[in-house]
Amino acid sequence: MTESRTPRSIVAVTAHSGDFVWRAGGALALSAARGDAVRVICLSFGERGESQGLWSRPGMDMETVKRVRREEAEAAAAALGVRVDFYDLGDYPLTVADGDRDRIVAALREARPDVLLTHVANDPYNLDHDTAHATALRTRMIAQAMGHDPAGTPIGATQVLMFEPHQPEVCGFTPNLLLDVTPVFDRKRKAMEVMSAQGHLIEYYTELGRRRGVQARRNGAPAGVVQAEAFQRVFPVVGDELI
Amino acid sequence: MTESRTPRSIVAVTAHSGDFVWRAGGALALSAARGDAVRVICLSFGERGESQGLWSRPGMDMETVKRVRREEAEAAAAALGVRVDFYDLGDYPLTVADGDRDRIVAALREARPDVLLTHVANDPYNLDHDTAHATALRTRMIAQAMGHDPAGTPIGATQVLMFEPHQPEVCGFTPNLLLDVTPVFDRKRKAMEVMSAQGHLIEYYTELGRRRGVQARRNGAPAGVVQAEAFQRVFPVVGDELI
Amino acid sequence: MTESRTPRSIVAVTAHSGDFVWRAGGALALSAARGDAVRVICLSFGERGESQGLWSRPGMDMETVKRVRREEAEAAAAALGVRVDFYDLGDYPLTVADGDRDRIVAALREARPDVLLTHVANDPYNLDHDTAHATALRTRMIAQAMGHDPAGTPIGATQVLMFEPHQPEVCGFTPNLLLDVTPVFDRKRKAMEVMSAQGHLIEYYTELGRRRGVQARRNGAPAGVVQAEAFQRVFPVVGDELI
Amino acid sequence: MTESRTPRSIVAVTAHSGDFVWRAGGALALSAARGDAVRVICLSFGERGESQGLWSRPGMDMETVKRVRREEAEAAAAALGVRVDFYDLGDYPLTVADGDRDRIVAALREARPDVLLTHVANDPYNLDHDTAHATALRTRMIAQAMGHDPAGTPIGATQVLMFEPHQPEVCGFTPNLLLDVTPVFDRKRKAMEVMSAQGHLIEYYTELGRRRGVQARRNGAPAGVVQAEAFQRVFPVVGDELI
Amino acid sequence: MTESRTPRSIVAVTAHSGDFVWRAGGALALSAARGDAVRVICLSFGERGESQGLWSRPGMDMETVKRVRREEAEAAAAALGVRVDFYDLGDYPLTVADGDRDRIVAALREARPDVLLTHVANDPYNLDHDTAHATALRTRMIAQAMGHDPAGTPIGATQVLMFEPHQPEVCGFTPNLLLDVTPVFDRKRKAMEVMSAQGHLIEYYTELGRRRGVQARRNGAPAGVVQAEAFQRVFPVVGDELI
Amino acid sequence: MTESRTPRSIVAVTAHSGDFVWRAGGALALSAARGDAVRVICLSFGERGESQGLWSRPGMDMETVKRVRREEAEAAAAALGVRVDFYDLGDYPLTVADGDRDRIVAALREARPDVLLTHVANDPYNLDHDTAHATALRTRMIAQAMGHDPAGTPIGATQVLMFEPHQPEVCGFTPNLLLDVTPVFDRKRKAMEVMSAQGHLIEYYTELGRRRGVQARRNGAPAGVVQAEAFQRVFPVVGDELI
Repeated sequence: MTESRTPRSIVAVTAHSGDFVWRAGGALALSAARGDAVRVICLSFGERGESQGLWSRPGMDMETVKRVRREEAEAAAAALGVRVDFYDLGDYPLTVADGDRDRIVAALREARPDVLLTHVANDPYNLDHDTAHATALRTRMIAQAMGHDPAGTPIGATQVLMFEPHQPEVCGFTPNLLLDVTPVFDRKRKAMEVMSAQGHLIEYYTELGRRRGVQARRNGAPAGVVQAEAFQRVFPVVGDELI
Repeated sequence: MTESRTPRSIVAVTAHSGDFVWRAGGALALSAARGDAVRVICLSFGERGESQGLWSRPGMDMETVKRVRREEAEAAAAALGVRVDFYDLGDYPLTVADGDRDRIVAALREARPDVLLTHVANDPYNLDHDTAHATALRTRMIAQAMGHDPAGTPIGATQVLMFEPHQPEVCGFTPNLLLDVTPVFDRKRKAMEVMSAQGHLIEYYTELGRRRGVQARRNGAPAGVVQAEAFQRVFPVVGDELI
Repeated sequence: MTESRTPRSIVAVTAHSGDFVWRAGGALALSAARGDAVRVICLSFGERGESQGLWSRPGMDMETVKRVRREEAEAAAAALGVRVDFYDLGDYPLTVADGDRDRIVAALREARPDVLLTHVANDPYNLDHDTAHATALRTRMIAQAMGHDPAGTPIGATQVLMFEPHQPEVCGFTPNLLLDVTPVFDRKRKAMEVMSAQGHLIEYYTELGRRRGVQARRNGAPAGVVQAEAFQRVFPVVGDELI
Repeated sequence: MTESRTPRSIVAVTAHSGDFVWRAGGALALSAARGDAVRVICLSFGERGESQGLWSRPGMDMETVKRVRREEAEAAAAALGVRVDFYDLGDYPLTVADGDRDRIVAALREARPDVLLTHVANDPYNLDHDTAHATALRTRMIAQAMGHDPAGTPIGATQVLMFEPHQPEVCGFTPNLLLDVTPVFDRKRKAMEVMSAQGHLIEYYTELGRRRGVQARRNGAPAGVVQAEAFQRVFPVVGDELI
Repeated sequence: MTESRTPRSIVAVTAHSGDFVWRAGGALALSAARGDAVRVICLSFGERGESQGLWSRPGMDMETVKRVRREEAEAAAAALGVRVDFYDLGDYPLTVADGDRDRIVAALREARPDVLLTHVANDPYNLDHDTAHATALRTRMIAQAMGHDPAGTPIGATQVLMFEPHQPEVCGFTPNLLLDVTPVFDRKRKAMEVMSAQGHLIEYYTELGRRRGVQARRNGAPAGVVQAEAFQRVFPVVGDELI
Repeated sequence: MTESRTPRSIVAVTAHSGDFVWRAGGALALSAARGDAVRVICLSFGERGESQGLWSRPGMDMETVKRVRREEAEAAAAALGVRVDFYDLGDYPLTVADGDRDRIVAALREARPDVLLTHVANDPYNLDHDTAHATALRTRMIAQAMGHDPAGTPIGATQVLMFEPHQPEVCGFTPNLLLDVTPVFDRKRKAMEVMSAQGHLIEYYTELGRRRGVQARRNGAPAGVVQAEAFQRVFPVVGDELI
């Protein structure tokens, strides 16, 4: 973690406020620990569809759910060392209006990401994920357009990485990057622990990370790789080494 | 090219003696230029199916075709800075008997490759390519087995990269690595030039490399990337950086 | 048909008023005959795009087309023993506005389906089918959300079955359930017969059912299986028996 | 080019004003040269996303970009011998409102195309292409509906051909038609030359056409086939000859 | 059928002696009726796996089964107007030894086919079909090799068409050619009728042809197209017309 | 487990002696507990490629490895309540000669399985798995042939279920059956515990089963489902209920 390295910019475009923690918390913490600027664009709080724990409390209302979800996500982001921006666009279904889209484009132009993270393209369990994926690709495209807000500066050809959905095979997810997150797993664990609304998931994702770690070792990772996260790249990698 | 770097081992398993030049010559030269040990396992000379130029000369016979093909491949390998071993297993069709397979396993154990290069899995134009692909995967598997020749040392979980077939879309080839071979393209050009039997292909592959170079730039490569080669990995990459 | 059995709830979300008859009439009649509550959500009458017979009559107008299509679909539903609800959202193209979507969500919450039936995801011949498919998945997702209309009760993880499109291979349809509808085929035949607007299709679908029946027998069905319908499940089946 | 032949109608539905030149200019010129009515429905000028050359000139503004792009496209269309209609719906993102859609439907009913050309269904680099593809399929479907504008005459089951995207494998493009455009390549070249905004692409597309030409010869085309364009059909071909 | 036309050469490589009748009888008869040379390479009699009717007769033995199967296939071939050659390589499983393969290569060189017909690549119900497919591709490749039997003349880049398997979707079969066989269907019917061993299939394949005919009309075929057969091409078509 | 039920026959065709335990131990124990006849056809001991623990002991030799592997597998089979037959065909690579194949065919005819279990079709990590898969499909086909050993009785259209490979997404595995093995997980655990050669895998597969259990509940399984195994069916299911 001490290597000299040009800081990079990482942006995650996610549907619900828990997604960045469970699905890519290790990756985000890893970049943050290396000095990268890491920003999460959180399109909704998951207030309707992913807050069962809160809604089962008596007398719950929408504003409270959103507030708690926001607080938890902020605490998780702090644990990971990343910034999170809430767009509050609603969930189940998530909808991205033209103005929202332009805000995201502006955020991309400001962040100038080296890497974008988002959901898979087709998740039959949860079409909000598809909406977030399409939003990431579409805003990336607009941010690249020289004639969009010509006073600004277009971004380049940012790679897009899809993180792992809950039932990967059903979503057509085929990982081509197993990322070692062992050095920062304590931060991911801590971030998961503050997500009380979905507390039962901590063991589940710890075990999943361990499984991806075993697979990483089976694909040649050194023995010290214990926790890994899986990603699928949308675009070919450009390289100068045969790896 | 001057960075300090642990030398690596690269092995290509190819069906016919020209394949390593046209399809992966840049990649092989790049590794060689960096000090890697690069070895080509050439399963046949392509003497029956890929030597039209030679066969159209009057009085040609099989031994002469093989000899010329071997000499050309050796000259091309020299131009690229790599070693080539000829297995002379016949082509159209290529067949790999048990003993041949065990020779390749022994070669893999000796070379201990960090990366294996080979053909795609399904090329309806040329089933010898499928045979070479299956041979690469099968010998890799055997070389990993502790109980195969227990006196030897098993190899690890070597990544396998498929190089580009002639009609990629028909063969289900989806590149996920665009490799910058600009710094060594002069060597690939020189290697192609000694392959007189298929001399008409030089312009074709120079243009193809330029096209892959444009695509690399469209995917974020710097402007200096002019020549690229495309590869598809069989296994997920293990990484410690979000790229 | 006489086994003791907890009644189930079946909902079909279909684009045009004929779809439930031709594509799933046997399945719906089978469930109805066993005492299940079967409800068809018919998003349009197919008044513009699937009523050629009516439009070729002189002096035809839209209201008459819709009325005839409704009457026929009601008669077909009666023949099958199922309930049909017309949403009248227009066809060619079908569009589902937010309010319509919420009506369907409410209907799902009321029906609490054990199984949802709908079209394939991608039918290049007819994008209304894609719209119906996406509507089924999206409304299912919303109906599952605890925070959507919190006074109501969310539905569970309902299986979704896609019925057979007209040109299955072009639509990427791969059946994984061949349903024996022999015991109720007379009802399907009767339902098809009242669909005068597309009367030429009766023989076609009778033959198709026979073909799926032969395939069912080739996959192990007993000799008495004569008429079958093909379905593709979206989600894995949960089972307690190795079948 | 002198055979007696019933003139046909060809319509291309394209996202940006340059697409018809680079991706299908040969095909369009070939039909035009044979006396077919060839019409390009150009949904936007590519004014924001595909006019880098213009925007890098000082003092550029949107109206000028559009004007120049229109003039260039008109000149290119003239060089190819085809008609181009500009819909000016905006790009990056392209959006097709209901009224625009109906204009296209009317144009299809007027043109009564034997063949529709458009983009691939899924291009992660450029979602405007997906929008154009979906627009082509959707307007084709509506134009077929007898109840849409019943005073008009529905079109038949027009074949849809997708032209080649920039990075075909990443877009799931698998060509099943390699079209010989050698006889009209001079017209395509001329059309490309008037597209000054993207002038650097001329060599690129000339080389690409040559590569597709080599592949055509490898698939049995006669030696005179030098320039080819690649297409993928959406629907099965109906034929009366085993080809 | 009276057009002036250069006669072509058609070769079908099939696993069992009934396959050419049920799956491609119309296509073969159509070519034959136009004066093409049509030859069926029948790798086995289907004597073990596709002769249930014969085996259920008391006292049946292998030689009798083969003889009856041969006689039926010869009668069917006569009805279609095509030539059939029996290779008698055994079935369930079919195995193609090196010498058999070379006989087929010699036959291809003699026939010089414009089109090859064969089974799909992957049929989980019947691996003999896969073997026939691989044999067709492999012998085609060898027959193209200039250095194989250099005294002979290599064949060109023959197109390969896969005919329809029994359960197309399960075999990954996606038809891209719907061939009108209406003009010769009486010959196919007659050929099917002489195949007494599998007589129950006549109605089945008549209905299947009618269904493919309806699909052909839905894809633009004229109303007179009643019987069609479905094929999937392995290689791209080379064309000079936008169809 | 006390329901009255016709006993069934289950056969697993596996490459190495540990596979039936790790990948399908729950499914096999579940059937056995219900009174089904469950038989494992174990093609090799995994003596070369899957016995690292044994080979790392000093002085180890092949016979000892095989003996220990056999004893462990027998103990595991006993724990599961199933029968295991060892074919000792060698591993890394596994090869199935004609005589071996016929032995398996005879075993299938004797067992008359209702369900066959085996590996996936394409596992690039381990081609022995592909060989076992192809062997299962091929022997099933031969066992169905009336003319194979006509004195015997052919089997019917047995369903084939593929069990989960180590890296499912890389092997194209898409589960469509999540089987509840909670009631017998103690037996699977016990069976895993006797497999000392690969003892480190027990926690891994316990966690994997828990993950599949969570997914089962997300797909509608009742809360009591804790341990599940994932399977993918090769053929469509024939059913008489809409599930």
